[in-house]
Amino acid sequence: MSVFEPGAERKFAFGRGPIFGSVLMPDGRVAPVEPWELIYQLGDVGAWGVALHDDEIAPSGATPAELDDNLDKVSKALDSTGMVVSMTRTNLTGYPVFDHGTFTSVDREVRRYAIQKAMRGIDVGAELGAELHDLPAEGVSSVAARSPLDALDRYREAIDFLCGYICDQGYSTRLAIPAKSAARHGGPLIATIGRALCFVNTLDRPEMVGLNTGLAHQASPGGCHGVDQALAVGKLFNVELNAHAGHEPSPGFCSASVSDAFFLVKLLVETNYDGPLHFDLDVNYLGGAAGICDLVGGCTRTYGALVAKAKRFADDPEIRDALTECGATELAEPSVGPFCPDAGRALSVERFDALAMTSRRCRGQRLDQLVADLVLGLR
Amino acid sequence: MSVFEPGAERKFAFGRGPIFGSVLMPDGRVAPVEPWELIYQLGDVGAWGVALHDDEIAPSGATPAELDDNLDKVSKALDSTGMVVSMTRTNLTGYPVFDHGTFTSVDREVRRYAIQKAMRGIDVGAELGAELHDLPAEGVSSVAARSPLDALDRYREAIDFLCGYICDQGYSTRLAIPAKSAARHGGPLIATIGRALCFVNTLDRPEMVGLNTGLAHQASPGGCHGVDQALAVGKLFNVELNAHAGHEPSPGFCSASVSDAFFLVKLLVETNYDGPLHFDLDVNYLGGAAGICDLVGGCTRTYGALVAKAKRFADDPEIRDALTECGATELAEPSVGPFCPDAGRALSVERFDALAMTSRRCRGQRLDQLVADLVLGLR
Amino acid sequence: MSVFEPGAERKFAFGRGPIFGSVLMPDGRVAPVEPWELIYQLGDVGAWGVALHDDEIAPSGATPAELDDNLDKVSKALDSTGMVVSMTRTNLTGYPVFDHGTFTSVDREVRRYAIQKAMRGIDVGAELGAELHDLPAEGVSSVAARSPLDALDRYREAIDFLCGYICDQGYSTRLAIPAKSAARHGGPLIATIGRALCFVNTLDRPEMVGLNTGLAHQASPGGCHGVDQALAVGKLFNVELNAHAGHEPSPGFCSASVSDAFFLVKLLVETNYDGPLHFDLDVNYLGGAAGICDLVGGCTRTYGALVAKAKRFADDPEIRDALTECGATELAEPSVGPFCPDAGRALSVERFDALAMTSRRCRGQRLDQLVADLVLGLR
Amino acid sequence: MSVFEPGAERKFAFGRGPIFGSVLMPDGRVAPVEPWELIYQLGDVGAWGVALHDDEIAPSGATPAELDDNLDKVSKALDSTGMVVSMTRTNLTGYPVFDHGTFTSVDREVRRYAIQKAMRGIDVGAELGAELHDLPAEGVSSVAARSPLDALDRYREAIDFLCGYICDQGYSTRLAIPAKSAARHGGPLIATIGRALCFVNTLDRPEMVGLNTGLAHQASPGGCHGVDQALAVGKLFNVELNAHAGHEPSPGFCSASVSDAFFLVKLLVETNYDGPLHFDLDVNYLGGAAGICDLVGGCTRTYGALVAKAKRFADDPEIRDALTECGATELAEPSVGPFCPDAGRALSVERFDALAMTSRRCRGQRLDQLVADLVLGLR
Repeated sequence: MSVFEPGAERKFAFGRGPIFGSVLMPDGRVAPVEPWELIYQLGDVGAWGVALHDDEIAPSGATPAELDDNLDKVSKALDSTGMVVSMTRTNLTGYPVFDHGTFTSVDREVRRYAIQKAMRGIDVGAELGAELHDLPAEGVSSVAARSPLDALDRYREAIDFLCGYICDQGYSTRLAIPAKSAARHGGPLIATIGRALCFVNTLDRPEMVGLNTGLAHQASPGGCHGVDQALAVGKLFNVELNAHAGHEPSPGFCSASVSDAFFLVKLLVETNYDGPLHFDLDVNYLGGAAGICDLVGGCTRTYGALVAKAKRFADDPEIRDALTECGATELAEPSVGPFCPDAGRALSVERFDALAMTSRRCRGQRLDQLVADLVLGLR
Repeated sequence: MSVFEPGAERKFAFGRGPIFGSVLMPDGRVAPVEPWELIYQLGDVGAWGVALHDDEIAPSGATPAELDDNLDKVSKALDSTGMVVSMTRTNLTGYPVFDHGTFTSVDREVRRYAIQKAMRGIDVGAELGAELHDLPAEGVSSVAARSPLDALDRYREAIDFLCGYICDQGYSTRLAIPAKSAARHGGPLIATIGRALCFVNTLDRPEMVGLNTGLAHQASPGGCHGVDQALAVGKLFNVELNAHAGHEPSPGFCSASVSDAFFLVKLLVETNYDGPLHFDLDVNYLGGAAGICDLVGGCTRTYGALVAKAKRFADDPEIRDALTECGATELAEPSVGPFCPDAGRALSVERFDALAMTSRRCRGQRLDQLVADLVLGLR
Repeated sequence: MSVFEPGAERKFAFGRGPIFGSVLMPDGRVAPVEPWELIYQLGDVGAWGVALHDDEIAPSGATPAELDDNLDKVSKALDSTGMVVSMTRTNLTGYPVFDHGTFTSVDREVRRYAIQKAMRGIDVGAELGAELHDLPAEGVSSVAARSPLDALDRYREAIDFLCGYICDQGYSTRLAIPAKSAARHGGPLIATIGRALCFVNTLDRPEMVGLNTGLAHQASPGGCHGVDQALAVGKLFNVELNAHAGHEPSPGFCSASVSDAFFLVKLLVETNYDGPLHFDLDVNYLGGAAGICDLVGGCTRTYGALVAKAKRFADDPEIRDALTECGATELAEPSVGPFCPDAGRALSVERFDALAMTSRRCRGQRLDQLVADLVLGLR
Repeated sequence: MSVFEPGAERKFAFGRGPIFGSVLMPDGRVAPVEPWELIYQLGDVGAWGVALHDDEIAPSGATPAELDDNLDKVSKALDSTGMVVSMTRTNLTGYPVFDHGTFTSVDREVRRYAIQKAMRGIDVGAELGAELHDLPAEGVSSVAARSPLDALDRYREAIDFLCGYICDQGYSTRLAIPAKSAARHGGPLIATIGRALCFVNTLDRPEMVGLNTGLAHQASPGGCHGVDQALAVGKLFNVELNAHAGHEPSPGFCSASVSDAFFLVKLLVETNYDGPLHFDLDVNYLGGAAGICDLVGGCTRTYGALVAKAKRFADDPEIRDALTECGATELAEPSVGPFCPDAGRALSVERFDALAMTSRRCRGQRLDQLVADLVLGLR
């Protein structure tokens, strides 16, 4: 089974995690490497893109000269490696001022501060050619203190404002919002992909806003049943390829649920998804350049293997036969067509043989086993 | 603290559960009581409405005469008790033909059969004056056999067809779809409230379709954060008042999470929800009329107590003071208003004192404790 | 990669599930096949054992003649196929009298009735040569009505009594208790493997009682971290090979989490587990003998493939090298040995280089990727 | 309803959380207050005990003089406030060297380093008169790299060594191990209370080791079903009073599930638990002394209210009547007594009236509603 080489034809992107992209300090703690160093390391192993936090480039209190210097170093690293910035992100981790919410904090000044921070992150991204800016998950500690309807209004107001800002600046940036069941400090405002999509539809410029999501970030069960809906309406702006085993972070892509990962990759292949493939690595391995090489190589290797399996699923004659046998191909056919009185009358008097229909439902297990074989590499 | 009397001013509705509404048979098993008997029993304890399954009135194979007889008996019971049918429901439990899906089965004939069954249920509801018809949760065993995008298309087609049928018949029925994280046999098609709302927006007649949901049926965490969004867009057609402790059914309303129930009721009160208050009782207590009286009395008593607590939350001077103190009332104020270049420029250069803002966040625990006191009856 | 043939050398066992082992009736519902028919069907595909419910042989109200006749038919089927009864089980499903608990019901008469039913099931098993009898999971609806400490006392009393009965009858039967996070009707009494083991230690004859458990039945996360402890103390009497995707039943072995299944099988191989390999099939596919053939073939094929992968894990030179490299082989070495004052003094003044130790931890991802490759069939 | 004053008669204890016990720094981040300052603050609001991390007193690299100075300041604060150190804890947070495990790390030197660190924490505790030392939860990133059976052996070896050390030093310290479903970095070694108890039984000196656990730390569902078993065998050394809403930390005691908290407190009252009542506050409210006063006051107030409700449960005539009516009091009676052949024979031929038994099960909902009323303050 052939496996993709890193970066060869896929938009593999990486960003700094809590430890990925860090180095060990003499005191035994870890510290992040400079973003340009991370870019050189990723470029060496063939990555396509890097996701950057706003304050990796424009930390609070940076002078214009420092900002320019940082932008310059990153630009050089991008030029040198041929990489792109896949997205910028508004980072809130480590800022206690945002512990009770950002765009939906009960404190109006905090809300304004968060919007300003996002504007600066968008500026940085535009400067570096990023097409996407990723907004943080909203959550609050005290349910009592926050009307959920007001919170939705404030979230909408903030994003409408940011879209207005982007247009006014002449940027082509699009915004991504997360669908996360676990937000910082309390119940999440937007816990599910469906809720996020529904929210986007209420915005002034819905076409500018989509989702950054994946298997590990959505509350809804059912694997890709959620990503599918985002894909169906063209709203999957960035897919996160990660995996959680239960509620634990997991060291690499698909190490938790191979089947879920397979069905997600299959869906991406079938729908010709061509956005970034962002590996969200919540690992705690160190090892500098060698460690990055191992991890990036492993993730892209696994992804490539799943793509090959998805293609095999489409082409394998026995799987095609099993699909037909269990009726899967029939699902694309209309059941009744659009309603018209004649169709209604006809259906209301149609006679069905429930016994015969029940009897037909008998060979799905063959397909399931073929998929198990495919995932395990037995075919 | 005053508590509502059952039915006095609230639309309390009940339907048959696996055991609620059943009687013990001589062989030691349970059997459902006839629907008209259930109506008389519920009427005796002051219930407002009853939810009926289609085949409680129109079982498979019933003759027109039998159907008329059933309709007649139910109508008499409704007249006699002054109750209404709050909704009819398409029942699929116990039909193996639907084990692999209904409107989205891979078998086209099964899909047509399911639509026909729903049409009959809608007919029964219209005959009995029900304003709402509740559709079943969709789910399938084999992920491999079903394209999620095709499944969404089939689900949409079925509901569009049913809406067309309703209009053509001149009914005023509206449809409710569930948002359930646990469907029969496999991953659910519509697991979350947000997904359901998003789906409704794609229908031919979105105004005819809303949600039947509540605390126990949604995948998203965060209590009412999901019901809020349905309420915000006028799509909560029927609220289910139930409770699950972990993944276990729970014998009465709010026996699992009192706080979640409180915040849900508070939200219903604040938004002036006036639809049915449907108690979805997944209990296994028997006891005939006496048992029903106890259960209905308990559920409505608890609901009434939570309404009283919600009103107290709004009126209590100390709670109002704590809300103001922690900034909660500020959340209704715009953060930045609509974007305009001047507003953007002003915000981008505004200076914020993060330290002062962080320091302000210090008194939310007083509000949280007041809510704990309120829930526990200490104030 | 070679794959075991069904039954060739493994103790593959099956029992009836809600649909597995059922046939479609003319009214469109399903009914269980007679147990001897199931045995012939399983024997045809090379199964080793069958698990039988007590009332499949001795239904309530059966005459002694009917019981003898059933025993006779099962014995003939066993003889003819060469199969064994891997265990008998006390079945409580469908008996409302047990809805509020069995051995720990608040009703003393119900408790006695449940013990009597278990005695009859044990008799049936002894008659058929079963070495194991499986007791049901305990749970109750009303937490308020039941003191958990009293409930534990009653559970212990019942099992001590049954062990006494078994010894008195001269049977060699051992008892299995489940560790289930989801019991019928309310919180489970014994939710975890650890709790079950701890409980067994308090019994009069702890050597007679062990566990029937597996991946899908335990509350604790961490895959085999639970089964391991049962294995370590010789208490895994029957392993259940099943899989749940989230809270949904899953159609075949390991269709939910391939990695969890792999690590469980690896553990069984490494510890030379030689008890029954019981496939607990919660499927809803029908299909008579052909369907059973497909399912049994698929489950045993997957199991065999995982055994082969586990052996490959042990033998593969690169994996062995990665294990050594990341220190895995060191874990079998004592850290400090038994305490003695000298060892304590020496350790208390030992100097550690935390930085060097942290730096060493850098190549675990190579091993993880080799495992991913192994599971996916890439090596 | 009267409510306990903080500290009046209860062993209320607190320790530093991620934010509780911290102060806001000029750069907008938070920093822990010195432990003696926390003691003075807690003493002012009537707390009984404080839990201290080893490195709050003996940070890595501290000179003997610094250590003495810290011990001296803490001792003075304890004397001045009349408080005790309820337990010391081995802290591992923020030490990357322990990211892959402590006592069960694959690196033998790391295991020795962790044991040494625990010895020093025990020394600090003994110096300060703490009767309990709390060990950290074990977890690892890579399942593949660690044999669970070896890991259990190493964990046992470490704790046996520490017990030997404690005896050798003449300390009276007892050790507490956690039962946590979510450990740092990967699947937990000891996820459940039952597993922890089972493990303790295998130690050299099981009498010296017990559990530090509570509602939010155990994997098993069913509220106090787990704590009960620890209580039953005298192994609940420290109860953690905390609450999680879903997977989110929750700001105060019982803010997530009031019912679970009630049943836990009821159990503690009924079993005369007299160990520390440790509030594990995972809050993100600041506010210095005023904030601590609010939080401590709220937690102890809620606890006191639940104690009062538990006593009311025991004394209320209507609840006592409902308990009798539904048979709850019968659960303390033996079902069958010890086995003897006569008892076995008698039971095997006893005739039961399943119908009558099922009919009896009809009034449990009255009790459940009385509990709901009690929790909500309606009685």
